[in-house]
Amino acid sequence: MEKDILLLQKTDLFKNLTAEQIKTLLGICRKVTFPENEFIMKEGDMGNSLYIILEGTVEVIKSLVLSDMNEDDSQEAVKNKVFTKIDERSHAVFGEIALLEECKRTATIRANTDCILYEIKKDDFLQLVETNCNLGCKILLNLARIVSARLRKADEDTIKLTTVLSIVLRESSS
Amino acid sequence: MEKDILLLQKTDLFKNLTAEQIKTLLGICRKVTFPENEFIMKEGDMGNSLYIILEGTVEVIKSLVLSDMNEDDSQEAVKNKVFTKIDERSHAVFGEIALLEECKRTATIRANTDCILYEIKKDDFLQLVETNCNLGCKILLNLARIVSARLRKADEDTIKLTTVLSIVLRESSS
Repeated sequence: MEKDILLLQKTDLFKNLTAEQIKTLLGICRKVTFPENEFIMKEGDMGNSLYIILEGTVEVIKSLVLSDMNEDDSQEAVKNKVFTKIDERSHAVFGEIALLEECKRTATIRANTDCILYEIKKDDFLQLVETNCNLGCKILLNLARIVSARLRKADEDTIKLTTVLSIVLRESSS
Repeated sequence: MEKDILLLQKTDLFKNLTAEQIKTLLGICRKVTFPENEFIMKEGDMGNSLYIILEGTVEVIKSLVLSDMNEDDSQEAVKNKVFTKIDERSHAVFGEIALLEECKRTATIRANTDCILYEIKKDDFLQLVETNCNLGCKILLNLARIVSARLRKADEDTIKLTTVLSIVLRESSS
């Protein structure tokens, strides 16, 4: 229990929470296990829960281009994905946007070893926010900041890509 | 006052708030005026406040590519920006991410007519959230959802752009 409290306090989503508030939060956390190679979530699937790694290593797989569904295993398809390995030491949280509303997963996550994770369901989270608004405010503020930092990054990527594309198109037409 | 309450309730950021909660919120709203053609915010500048249009029309100007600062007025620079006109009927809120943390403005906003706007400062907002957590939770939940919807859109744009870029590069090398 103490170990889990410390672990949750180290995540960006639950930082600033008191030990007492983390204990309340643990009331809606469910421990789930995934054997090696099993998918925790698949890009494009609808999701309504977040995951926090307690033990094990996962692989995050994200498409860089719109994929032709028929060539998912081809060399071309593999080339167009990024693979990142993450273990419990990174205090990573996956799928936090699904706490706000059911939405499509934007990456695939596969258990790289046997894994133990905490799962939090959207409905349980939204009910907790309503009944414990002090706790809710802290988490929502963290969550909004995490998402807005990612939005800034995505906006920068978009503008860089448009710039490269406009240069390439200009050069190829000249 | 009644008109302003109705107007704020129609924004995505303050929807679901009761009339009583909007009245509390109005305590941190300051009415500001901008004459025609004056800049309300400039892309790249640091900002720590949001704006809601009460009266008037504004123009939102957003760069599509990284701009050469020396050619800000050239035809090329103008071509690489999008211009959108927005008035009070759209119930638009600008700069809401600045409520979470001081950050760079991602668009320029200029008064297209004489404008009256409400301004909310980050520090006032964060203090309100702390002292009135019921109200804070509702606004933060709306804000997190607004930002996450934009993130999804930006992620889709990124993947589309990467796809186009990979096709263009493949064709130009073949």
